Amino acid sequence: MSSRLRHRKTGGRRAKLAARQHVDLGTVAFIDRKIPYYEVLDEEGLQLIERNAETVLEEIGVEFRDFPEALALLKGAGAEVDGERVRFPRGLCRSIIQASAPAEFTQHARNPERNVIIGGKRTVLAPSYGSPFVRDLDQGRRYATIEDFRNFVKLTYLSPGLHHSGGTVCEPVDIPVNKRHLDMVYSHIKYSDKPFMGSVTAPERAQDTVDMAKIVFGDDFVEKNTVITSLINANSPLTFDATMLGAATVYARNNQATMISPFLLAGAMSPVTVAGTATQILAEALAGMTYVQLVRPGAPIIFGTFASSMSMQSGAPTFGSPEPALVLYIAAALARRLGVPFRSGGGLCASKIPDAQAAYESANTLQTAALAGVNFMLHTAGWLEGGLTMGYEKFIMDADQANMIAIILGGVDLSENGQAMDALREVGPGQHFLGAAHTQANFEKAFYRSPVADNNSFEQWLEDGSLDTAQRANLIWKKMLQDYEAPPLDPAIDEALQDFMVRRKSEFPDQEY
Amino acid sequence: MSSRLRHRKTGGRRAKLAARQHVDLGTVAFIDRKIPYYEVLDEEGLQLIERNAETVLEEIGVEFRDFPEALALLKGAGAEVDGERVRFPRGLCRSIIQASAPAEFTQHARNPERNVIIGGKRTVLAPSYGSPFVRDLDQGRRYATIEDFRNFVKLTYLSPGLHHSGGTVCEPVDIPVNKRHLDMVYSHIKYSDKPFMGSVTAPERAQDTVDMAKIVFGDDFVEKNTVITSLINANSPLTFDATMLGAATVYARNNQATMISPFLLAGAMSPVTVAGTATQILAEALAGMTYVQLVRPGAPIIFGTFASSMSMQSGAPTFGSPEPALVLYIAAALARRLGVPFRSGGGLCASKIPDAQAAYESANTLQTAALAGVNFMLHTAGWLEGGLTMGYEKFIMDADQANMIAIILGGVDLSENGQAMDALREVGPGQHFLGAAHTQANFEKAFYRSPVADNNSFEQWLEDGSLDTAQRANLIWKKMLQDYEAPPLDPAIDEALQDFMVRRKSEFPDQEY
Repeated sequence: MSSRLRHRKTGGRRAKLAARQHVDLGTVAFIDRKIPYYEVLDEEGLQLIERNAETVLEEIGVEFRDFPEALALLKGAGAEVDGERVRFPRGLCRSIIQASAPAEFTQHARNPERNVIIGGKRTVLAPSYGSPFVRDLDQGRRYATIEDFRNFVKLTYLSPGLHHSGGTVCEPVDIPVNKRHLDMVYSHIKYSDKPFMGSVTAPERAQDTVDMAKIVFGDDFVEKNTVITSLINANSPLTFDATMLGAATVYARNNQATMISPFLLAGAMSPVTVAGTATQILAEALAGMTYVQLVRPGAPIIFGTFASSMSMQSGAPTFGSPEPALVLYIAAALARRLGVPFRSGGGLCASKIPDAQAAYESANTLQTAALAGVNFMLHTAGWLEGGLTMGYEKFIMDADQANMIAIILGGVDLSENGQAMDALREVGPGQHFLGAAHTQANFEKAFYRSPVADNNSFEQWLEDGSLDTAQRANLIWKKMLQDYEAPPLDPAIDEALQDFMVRRKSEFPDQEY
Repeated sequence: MSSRLRHRKTGGRRAKLAARQHVDLGTVAFIDRKIPYYEVLDEEGLQLIERNAETVLEEIGVEFRDFPEALALLKGAGAEVDGERVRFPRGLCRSIIQASAPAEFTQHARNPERNVIIGGKRTVLAPSYGSPFVRDLDQGRRYATIEDFRNFVKLTYLSPGLHHSGGTVCEPVDIPVNKRHLDMVYSHIKYSDKPFMGSVTAPERAQDTVDMAKIVFGDDFVEKNTVITSLINANSPLTFDATMLGAATVYARNNQATMISPFLLAGAMSPVTVAGTATQILAEALAGMTYVQLVRPGAPIIFGTFASSMSMQSGAPTFGSPEPALVLYIAAALARRLGVPFRSGGGLCASKIPDAQAAYESANTLQTAALAGVNFMLHTAGWLEGGLTMGYEKFIMDADQANMIAIILGGVDLSENGQAMDALREVGPGQHFLGAAHTQANFEKAFYRSPVADNNSFEQWLEDGSLDTAQRANLIWKKMLQDYEAPPLDPAIDEALQDFMVRRKSEFPDQEY
């Protein structure tokens, strides 16, 4: 890495190129939604789920395990604490959250042009998260390394449809478990200027993330602004463990954002019905977000959910199927009614390879998430094999879909030019529009051009080598990595980050947990 | 074919098997939608499109070519006829259509359990239409034959998610152009008992379709009921030709349904904008449906649309992209406001093979059509290569998606069992739901099981031969055809149909147009 850094420091030419690339990436920092949300339940149905979730919180309760300070805080706020089981009087969670949680917040990027607003009518897309394996057409499936991690940060940086650098885009298993978060956070900062996610695998790793962010943004800025958004999964059903609570506590105290995410395989970790699963999601999210608001009222939170269904034959998770889509539509509506940002998504699939199954399943979830009104779409690009594998070709295909989501959510241009009445008048019956003045004036931006799809004739496609989508995507990601130029980073900051990493790594021995 | 027929006649055992198969196909004859429509435009936006469409009809008009009787009828109804150009005073088309066109209608199948209702909250799914080529993994791409045609009728019959047998499921190019409609209609009747579509390539072929339907249903029944739904494409922009008008006239006179479908490649046959294309679609559909209502007031009509966008590089049609999805959402809303059934869809793609591109594009259009509120979804299964090719494996994959559409549109079970509060109470924090009484009682039907998707572990998938989706689909369609049993058909009707075909084929020489 140091040779790369030296190279960067020399580079006026490279800096200029990077600046130009930067502009060329074009597009906006996030999507500002112009079309309505899609909802599957009416007011009565949503109220039913909300009532049932309150019953779950009141009667059954939620366990906060091995984390006494959460129990103390919750008890102080009016919850009934029995051992590690916490029961909430009806409406308590909702009122605590609504009293202080922001409806939307800005997550700052080191490049201010890439700041994202999370919440309201905004949609922010981020790559997949958490895969121990990677896959590409050349080398097949293998354990991920820090080099893969850097590659996906670079590819995300270069993908205009992805607004956020994500977090654990893959697990760099060539670095000790207890130190790899340093390299991951550094890579996000170094190889991208988009906002990123922090470590959640231990409180001290969360603190390292905050400390590195302070090197980049300054202590005072971090105290007053959100520069990290992190993923806090519940241990569904109805349980939060000390690891996740510890990380959430660190981030909340530092005014950094957390997405409290029930992580459900319906049938195993939640009931086998859509309504029952949605009820549990709401109960878990309410309990988790309540805790965060008690740690620091006003700390940014996101109502997250990840729900798949289970194959009742094999016990494996299934994706892109109708029941989780219905759950997602309901959960998004519940978050809106609560008044907090919502996270779900993205290009989820069970397929081991980037084939038709992967694409059907991913498209189904991407469309659902987009129409439901997801504010932060995790796992937008790269996901294979239930999240076990991050795919290079799959990433390219999904990033293409991400671009299209921006257009769908951008809605319909009803301006005079959009109405195109002059074109209709100019052309008339039986003629074609290709040469019309309106067509000529608009064709460059008229329709989305996919870099991955082949729309040529069969004969042309044959002549081009009969490539399938994955083969075309393979050429694209290699070209992107080849052409990649890092965004400029103040050398003093870079050095300070590296010093921090070296120091922290020297302070404790390597561990594989 | 005659040996098959003899075989059928002998078969008590086969008839019983067919009857059982029939029951096993299970499911319902069509989808009764339980979830809301998704709309991208508000009232104001839709009114703007409607006003602009009226302006197009009033100022620019529509050409009815080489078909004087249409001009006479339209003039008599108050349109301004100038040569073949017909201009409509504002509101004329809408008032004529709304005065007599049914909001929904039943298309009868020869098996009454398979009757479909088209319109209102119903969705009817049909396979692809019109491909001259077929493709499978074993033989690649080749011209379609009548054997392929029969195969797709059989596969559709065996697919519970497809409610309608469709029409030209592929072009049987081994039969002369002017006679193949007889074999196609016969195949739909013989190898399926689902409703079907009729020939539109010449008025006399439409009449043959009606006459064959009369053999099956009886003259009087056909006069009083709809047993055929046929596809009438406009020659966009703003033109109807004599072939399509001739067929539409025959069907309307016989009280049979037509779907009047602007067929647009936006940028070539309509403006390069979403709003402009939607405007043209509404104008063309209004003009065509008006003509049909003048031929026979009350004849069932469907507002159809097929809109894709054009690659501005190659001129090729592109599918699954955002702009046509926006057009589709708008067109569905316009049809609802007019009060007539709507046709669009389905699994459209530009890919030459059933790969990830095919699946992303198809899923995007299928989801859009389902949420928009399509009543009749043509091209649901099999479509490849912009419609030039009907794919065996693609058919199986799309039929799987069709099953899932039924579940999505079926909405959320909010019954006590659906709420699953007992399951939540029984299981509690940190436990799993697998053994819960509620799970046991519901798991069989809880989640959709895809026959095509592989949800197994990577290791199991490796052990099973590392098949991709297309390879699994290949096994499925072969097994389906192997196990196929024809639904019972009265031998007297069968003989009469064959006699009709033999007689008609002898009445004129073979032609290749």
